[in-house]
Amino acid sequence: VDQVIDGRHLRLETTPLALVGRKAVTRSLSDIAAMAARPVGALVAVVLPPEFGAERAEALFDAMRAAAAEYDCPLIGGDIAFHADAAHPLTCSVTVLAEPVHGRAITRAGAEVDDVVYVTGALGGAVLEDGGGKHLTFEPRIAEAIELTGALGPRLHSMIDLSDGLGRDASHIAEASNVQIELDAARIPCAAGVDWRAAAGEGEDYELLFTATGDVPAQLAGSLAVTAIGRVSPHRGEGGPMVIIRAGSEIITGDELGWQHES
Amino acid sequence: VDQVIDGRHLRLETTPLALVGRKAVTRSLSDIAAMAARPVGALVAVVLPPEFGAERAEALFDAMRAAAAEYDCPLIGGDIAFHADAAHPLTCSVTVLAEPVHGRAITRAGAEVDDVVYVTGALGGAVLEDGGGKHLTFEPRIAEAIELTGALGPRLHSMIDLSDGLGRDASHIAEASNVQIELDAARIPCAAGVDWRAAAGEGEDYELLFTATGDVPAQLAGSLAVTAIGRVSPHRGEGGPMVIIRAGSEIITGDELGWQHES
Repeated sequence: VDQVIDGRHLRLETTPLALVGRKAVTRSLSDIAAMAARPVGALVAVVLPPEFGAERAEALFDAMRAAAAEYDCPLIGGDIAFHADAAHPLTCSVTVLAEPVHGRAITRAGAEVDDVVYVTGALGGAVLEDGGGKHLTFEPRIAEAIELTGALGPRLHSMIDLSDGLGRDASHIAEASNVQIELDAARIPCAAGVDWRAAAGEGEDYELLFTATGDVPAQLAGSLAVTAIGRVSPHRGEGGPMVIIRAGSEIITGDELGWQHES
Repeated sequence: VDQVIDGRHLRLETTPLALVGRKAVTRSLSDIAAMAARPVGALVAVVLPPEFGAERAEALFDAMRAAAAEYDCPLIGGDIAFHADAAHPLTCSVTVLAEPVHGRAITRAGAEVDDVVYVTGALGGAVLEDGGGKHLTFEPRIAEAIELTGALGPRLHSMIDLSDGLGRDASHIAEASNVQIELDAARIPCAAGVDWRAAAGEGEDYELLFTATGDVPAQLAGSLAVTAIGRVSPHRGEGGPMVIIRAGSEIITGDELGWQHES
């Protein structure tokens, strides 16, 4: 279950309803991708400002239904409620039911020392100044994750989708797996015009971050790049950094970049 | 999936967090009771005002966990997000997964002409002036609904839980089943100090309303009264009232009582 809230995850005022509904669903589907699971159905709960109007509510549900259908995930239930106050923000919570593929669900908790850390796609710049950008239009990596777990089998140890940002999400894997993750700044694949600090610190990429041993495909689904960006090392003990980034001879922690202790 | 929103379904300012969490869960469990299903697990999505605080968030989740556990429904997932603005209201959406008992789920859509209409418990007065009352502390009728479907088998034709109020919820059955429902005002079981108009018009009773043929237990779970309050009759055609109430020689429609066309 995940949520999209006006003012937090998008700006209703400047975002087409089709993209509001799309993001509400794809954000939850991305969590399913992170487990290499296959969606079965979705339930949505929406709270609307009192004067939202039946026509726009219908358009929002149509968008959610269409986005879910695109990933073979029928909308099987829902609830609409209205806020008491016109200033209260639209909220969509979407619960996706899913089943594991290839017999197991991948979690954040399986990273092992000496695993290589990989990321799909290119990171950063997902939220544009005007509120638009990839954070509204991304494709949850469901097919790619299923392909990956099929190819790697038990060599795929842990996975997460990048919603909070590479740094924070890597620390989620590190914490759940009781390891440290070392990233190489020079290898982080950055979106056009984005430097590695922004690529590691911004969020809403909805790419896959995973750790594995052995050979890994260089591409998934024929076109999505897979890049090795680091390595799993032993836990440094209480209070030590969960994630470090090596940039040339410098070693930088999340604290210095502003994300270590947030989540 | 169902939701509880500050300012709509309760007042956060005057309601103990334990009851906020409880209602968020029991409201969704009551929907499960209405289908005579057995809960399997719950997922919650909460949006909190920005200054809510970790301790109170924890208390809220503890309350949700406890309420769910009371009905053998483990909390299996959740998400917390924060509003951008302190004036934005707490929202809890709760999705409950459940499985049918005795081989089928009961819906609103099975009422048949000549069915008798029954209700459990006593209606009205669930929301007190001060914001407290049964709407915060009710017991979802899960065990009672399962007992009922076990006792009646295929003679139990339709069921709903009373959240919108007897009149509106009866019209939901009538509409889904394409029938008319006639209620007898004198037989509506009213809570102490409540007249039948209030009992039919108010909501949040979370009792079961159902239609069936043949013998029906006078009590469920040893103590919950079951009262026959009306009958199912043929649909009156386009625009005719879905629900009428006979009070002595008078026939009153929901329109006159203010609820026919709301939902």
